[in-house]
Amino acid sequence: MSPTLNENPLREHSRILSVGHFSPDVIVTNEDVCQWIDSSDEWIRQRTGIESRRRADAQTQLIDMAEAAAREAVERAGIQASQLGAVIVSTVTFPYVTPSAAALLAERIGATPAPAFDISAACAGYCYGVAQADALVRSGAAEYVLVVGAEKLSDIIDNHERTISFLLGDGAGAVVIGPSDTPGISKSQWGSNGAKWDAIGMTHSLLDLRDIAVGAQDDPSMLAVAQTEAKLWPTLRQDGQTVFRWAVWEMAKVARKAVEDAGIEPSDLVAFLPHQANLRIIDQMVKELGLPEHVYVARDIKESGNTSAASIPLAMHRALEEHPELSGGLALQIGFGAGLVFGAQVVVLP
Amino acid sequence: MSPTLNENPLREHSRILSVGHFSPDVIVTNEDVCQWIDSSDEWIRQRTGIESRRRADAQTQLIDMAEAAAREAVERAGIQASQLGAVIVSTVTFPYVTPSAAALLAERIGATPAPAFDISAACAGYCYGVAQADALVRSGAAEYVLVVGAEKLSDIIDNHERTISFLLGDGAGAVVIGPSDTPGISKSQWGSNGAKWDAIGMTHSLLDLRDIAVGAQDDPSMLAVAQTEAKLWPTLRQDGQTVFRWAVWEMAKVARKAVEDAGIEPSDLVAFLPHQANLRIIDQMVKELGLPEHVYVARDIKESGNTSAASIPLAMHRALEEHPELSGGLALQIGFGAGLVFGAQVVVLP
Repeated sequence: MSPTLNENPLREHSRILSVGHFSPDVIVTNEDVCQWIDSSDEWIRQRTGIESRRRADAQTQLIDMAEAAAREAVERAGIQASQLGAVIVSTVTFPYVTPSAAALLAERIGATPAPAFDISAACAGYCYGVAQADALVRSGAAEYVLVVGAEKLSDIIDNHERTISFLLGDGAGAVVIGPSDTPGISKSQWGSNGAKWDAIGMTHSLLDLRDIAVGAQDDPSMLAVAQTEAKLWPTLRQDGQTVFRWAVWEMAKVARKAVEDAGIEPSDLVAFLPHQANLRIIDQMVKELGLPEHVYVARDIKESGNTSAASIPLAMHRALEEHPELSGGLALQIGFGAGLVFGAQVVVLP
Repeated sequence: MSPTLNENPLREHSRILSVGHFSPDVIVTNEDVCQWIDSSDEWIRQRTGIESRRRADAQTQLIDMAEAAAREAVERAGIQASQLGAVIVSTVTFPYVTPSAAALLAERIGATPAPAFDISAACAGYCYGVAQADALVRSGAAEYVLVVGAEKLSDIIDNHERTISFLLGDGAGAVVIGPSDTPGISKSQWGSNGAKWDAIGMTHSLLDLRDIAVGAQDDPSMLAVAQTEAKLWPTLRQDGQTVFRWAVWEMAKVARKAVEDAGIEPSDLVAFLPHQANLRIIDQMVKELGLPEHVYVARDIKESGNTSAASIPLAMHRALEEHPELSGGLALQIGFGAGLVFGAQVVVLP
């Protein structure tokens, strides 16, 4: 007979203790974008709501943005980085297949030897990270968890491409999640639909590039051909119609279920913080959800563009800066993107 | 006053219900390796314990290996894939920066719409996945969680490089974790040491490649220069001495703490399933831990090489195939690798 194993003691509740942010300096206007694609400021505003987006310069790396957001979140949580029991970085733009950005971030902010790992869940990555952090805190595996959504999307786009590139910005947002005396994060509505795996993604596999690099050892002309055919550096593209329809119809259902399963009414919310993908998607979701007038709706996309995993914590940070009275109220957050994947929770605002 | 949020009801215990595996067909012997590097079968056996490693052919993709291992694990768990509450794939070799391998895998095995995400924690990735799955099950966020460790490392190595490439193999292992009436997974010992972030990693950033691809639009000669200087396709390398010392000394401490914190003695174990990085590391850890003779020690590395996140579930699968009497006994598992990161648990074998 084996002896019984010790487990971490369970905890009843978790909550978001703080939020941090970093928005880079370079402002890319619709006029700038129209140098690269045949469009107009008016068309872009009407179709997406975007007036400008912020992008990082060449000196500002993904890890720098993650560090700035993380430092603010840890400081505002009133804890030391050494108290973190896990560091989760949601990103798809860290330019090394290994090691993780999180291990480097943990070291930079003084969280070593905390467990540290990156997750790949695209624009749902922040909400996926919150779901995991909530589970780590409630299961007793960690007391405090740092969740960072950070993206330098400008590294993986082709500015001349017109399905997605002009929508995207760079940035980082972070939250610290810790123990709570009362429920602070509702059960997560999260999931995937891999049947639409192709709807948002890269132009080609990194292995195509490997094959070119290897093949060019025997046939150097392969390089010039690959360059001409843009087969070297994979960039993002999307099937905009498919994604738009899915976001408008399916995500409104997910958002509604998140509210219902949280045991509240839409009128109990003080804020709606959806992923900032497109203003038309946001407005349609507000309509579908029947959100009353008093609910603050994040429309950060106007000035920041779509920053993927960073968009919700950035929007939360801004909402609390501009409307500190929202603190302590209930917010519905929902992320959705490449996979396709989605995640939503009702949270008590820090 | 806001209404109270509903949370998932907590669960006391989780355990590993089943294990699945996939080992690819191509056997790469030490003689094969010595075509690429100046070494000998004898030297490789003495220094690493490796006699051969298994690698996937060009037709066998990472996702195919992950699927095979996942299907076996789900079937042996006696559940339907549709019952999975989360799909976690630990990998560093999926050749797309987005979307995740997990979303595609979930769709392939019939787990859609389960939440699905990839994690980046290198050779500790399986143990990191187990820590998260345990938290998801015990916090009530999921009933069953699939954790897959899958790597096609042969895609990111340079066979002529001699710090790490000759050690590596390809493969996939998977476990299903679910509710349990008794403790089945001890509290995880997991962590990171980003001060040694450079000890194992890629030769250069993917962004170097982007800069070359962009720069070559104006100066096509950049391509040939990059090719000559091997600046196109980044490959793995390690500072072997640093990693070896860290693994032997620090990981033995982590393993001992995992056993102590689980509340058991080394003599209570039936099996030791360490990450298969080097036979000398394994033997040294066995010595440091003072494991008695009756404890089965996985030495899978002899025939499979180092398969990173896949190595522990592959070793577990083999242990249970060859010694079914181990089932139900306590096993110590420990993963460690690039980051540097590590994770260890004592688990009840399925």
